[in-house]
Amino acid sequence: MVVELINTGSELMLGRVLNTHQQWLCGRLADLGYVVTRQVAVADAAQDIETAVREALGRADLVITTGGLGPTSDDLTGDLIARLVGRKLHEDAGVLAHIKKFFESRNRPMPERTRVQAMVPEGALVLANPHGTAPGLAMEVRPNPFRSEGRASWLILLPGPPRELRPLFSETVAPLLKRVLPLADEFVCRTLRTMGIGESVVQERIGGQLAPLVKAGLDLGYCARPGQVDVRLAARGIGVENLVQEAERIVRAQLGSRIFGVEDEELEEVIIRLLTERKETLALAESCTGGCITNLLTNVPGASAVLLAGLVTYSNEAKQKFLGVRAETLAGHGAVSEAAARQMAEGARGRMEANYALSVTGIAGPSGGTPSKPVGTVFIGLAGPFATRVEHNFNPYDRETFKQVTAQQALDLLRKALVQG
Amino acid sequence: MVVELINTGSELMLGRVLNTHQQWLCGRLADLGYVVTRQVAVADAAQDIETAVREALGRADLVITTGGLGPTSDDLTGDLIARLVGRKLHEDAGVLAHIKKFFESRNRPMPERTRVQAMVPEGALVLANPHGTAPGLAMEVRPNPFRSEGRASWLILLPGPPRELRPLFSETVAPLLKRVLPLADEFVCRTLRTMGIGESVVQERIGGQLAPLVKAGLDLGYCARPGQVDVRLAARGIGVENLVQEAERIVRAQLGSRIFGVEDEELEEVIIRLLTERKETLALAESCTGGCITNLLTNVPGASAVLLAGLVTYSNEAKQKFLGVRAETLAGHGAVSEAAARQMAEGARGRMEANYALSVTGIAGPSGGTPSKPVGTVFIGLAGPFATRVEHNFNPYDRETFKQVTAQQALDLLRKALVQG
Repeated sequence: MVVELINTGSELMLGRVLNTHQQWLCGRLADLGYVVTRQVAVADAAQDIETAVREALGRADLVITTGGLGPTSDDLTGDLIARLVGRKLHEDAGVLAHIKKFFESRNRPMPERTRVQAMVPEGALVLANPHGTAPGLAMEVRPNPFRSEGRASWLILLPGPPRELRPLFSETVAPLLKRVLPLADEFVCRTLRTMGIGESVVQERIGGQLAPLVKAGLDLGYCARPGQVDVRLAARGIGVENLVQEAERIVRAQLGSRIFGVEDEELEEVIIRLLTERKETLALAESCTGGCITNLLTNVPGASAVLLAGLVTYSNEAKQKFLGVRAETLAGHGAVSEAAARQMAEGARGRMEANYALSVTGIAGPSGGTPSKPVGTVFIGLAGPFATRVEHNFNPYDRETFKQVTAQQALDLLRKALVQG
Repeated sequence: MVVELINTGSELMLGRVLNTHQQWLCGRLADLGYVVTRQVAVADAAQDIETAVREALGRADLVITTGGLGPTSDDLTGDLIARLVGRKLHEDAGVLAHIKKFFESRNRPMPERTRVQAMVPEGALVLANPHGTAPGLAMEVRPNPFRSEGRASWLILLPGPPRELRPLFSETVAPLLKRVLPLADEFVCRTLRTMGIGESVVQERIGGQLAPLVKAGLDLGYCARPGQVDVRLAARGIGVENLVQEAERIVRAQLGSRIFGVEDEELEEVIIRLLTERKETLALAESCTGGCITNLLTNVPGASAVLLAGLVTYSNEAKQKFLGVRAETLAGHGAVSEAAARQMAEGARGRMEANYALSVTGIAGPSGGTPSKPVGTVFIGLAGPFATRVEHNFNPYDRETFKQVTAQQALDLLRKALVQG
């Protein structure tokens, strides 16, 4: 099964937006066993889109495009593709009614130009878009003039806005694919996610032992991010479930508690899950991470049941007023110190009557460093039903990376305490 | 100038990571006038990488690849490309010394396999990577066997980790490009960013008036995100500066204070800039946005000078204890109410002695909605040296989009107060 993804949008080529479709669609498709083999992005330029679609139709069983279905003059995809595969466009009464209703229900007048979104290539399936005006479209190109022996390809056009594309894909495209393009082979993919260990070390620990399985068809991959390394174990064929399970057993034996989660699971989800299971609560006292930890945790549905408060105490006054950090500590050791981190964590835990409290104080940069406390210096405190722990780390990265890495380290400090006591 | 970008990594094709390189590199290259015409991502598979590089060399003056230069077995790019363009690899003494020093300075043993990163194709320029072990590589493919008449192409290989790639690009690749691939034409690009107005409405207001400029060569584009629409005005050629300036004048006249910033400027940067200029301070009281606003603001260097504290008061107790929200208010109106938003903002402003305070309380979902207050309901309060304002919005999106859109609305409420009084 050859699957290609085409993202259109001049804003992509000019770096105006992040291409979140690539990750989201590739991830969902891989889960379903349709691994994308090539992803291409081109500008909203007729020639570039046409070339990309023609090339993809020449190679792939499934081609998915995103974007270019909107109402504005740079939305070209629908028109272009209809012409490319030789289909006439007609106004679809159902789509037009949906567009009218969409604006009515929002008490907004329907801009005349949105009417163009009701134009559908003949023979195309309309994929309803409850969250927007442009529907998705699906069509089987058969015979396919761009492929040897005219082999058929499925072509699926999706709207650009993520909040429209995502439910449309999950609710409509996924079931359609299983029906019209069933997979020949079993596909199994397992990802184990680790914290606090480098990519080279991960490979040295598991590479040798996994070598025989790789010979037997295991696809072994590593993905390193600041502070994290994912180990991906995949295989395709009959009975590959056992191969991947054996590989997982080896990786778990070697990496143990460095593994914090599987698949897409994020550290913040693990924390919320563990706290929810234990019916325990958490308070946060952040300084240099500036709300990054609180923001990550509150992305997880259900966080409100276990997270009592996150106090981002940027100023010394706020550290004193809301957390009870002592003036002498700030004067004697500074706000970036082991003592301050300890008092922040204990203050947050005590005042919120939480089971645990995490604190972070450090120097995110780019300015504010000193010879004894350079940019990247950070103290992470954890207060709980045990002696307060303080970790002293050095994360000499740019400001945003510093915040993210430090947030992950703080969450991992709590995770280890929760799973190991 | 034809410029193509190739991102390699199986993790990209499986949706394990977000391709941030595409946005970052496309943005930086566009700023320099080297607009990327096509971006491709393929897995860490020899055949796929080779095909992508060969095709790009067949079309482009400049081909940039990312990833595949690491020390692990799925890092294939360096080897493959050397073979493709017929260059032998040799161990570079300078790079090897850098790798040894890199590990020494971190008090870590050098894993033997990192030595492979010192292998450099003959004739290639080594682009020093101070933040990692794998250097970037640049080479002129001349004659280029994949291009008609053997026209030369520049091929630049960059390491995958963003914190290595970004400084390497800015410090080394950007100056190199200006030297080896100078631009023939002037290129001007201006982006105006708007809040709180739909894409269709933006186009209806400015499309007609800009039509003559589009005929004269203006490239007009729109980029819509939840709550925001960017208007991009670009042109290439001699004297295009005037064309783009005239277009900007028209857009500003039509959209006025809906325009919050230009180019890459984010709303949070505008807020920090305005507060810094006015020497005024801000406190935040967040509930349903869960630290998203505080986290955005603290991404901006210098935020600590104007942001006093961000209190994420998820629980009712925290709203009472840290912000002084009255128990009767919570009992009578609920935590999601105009009265609660008002007291949160006024409480944060008073307790922190800030010039302004923003508050947010609402229902992010997916659960917690009621018929009278469905998921998406939100109250945004702004306290300042004027009567407290409360905005009642409805943002019926998924949890993360809800947080982001609401955060933008809150920041824009403050922005309008700062610029209009």
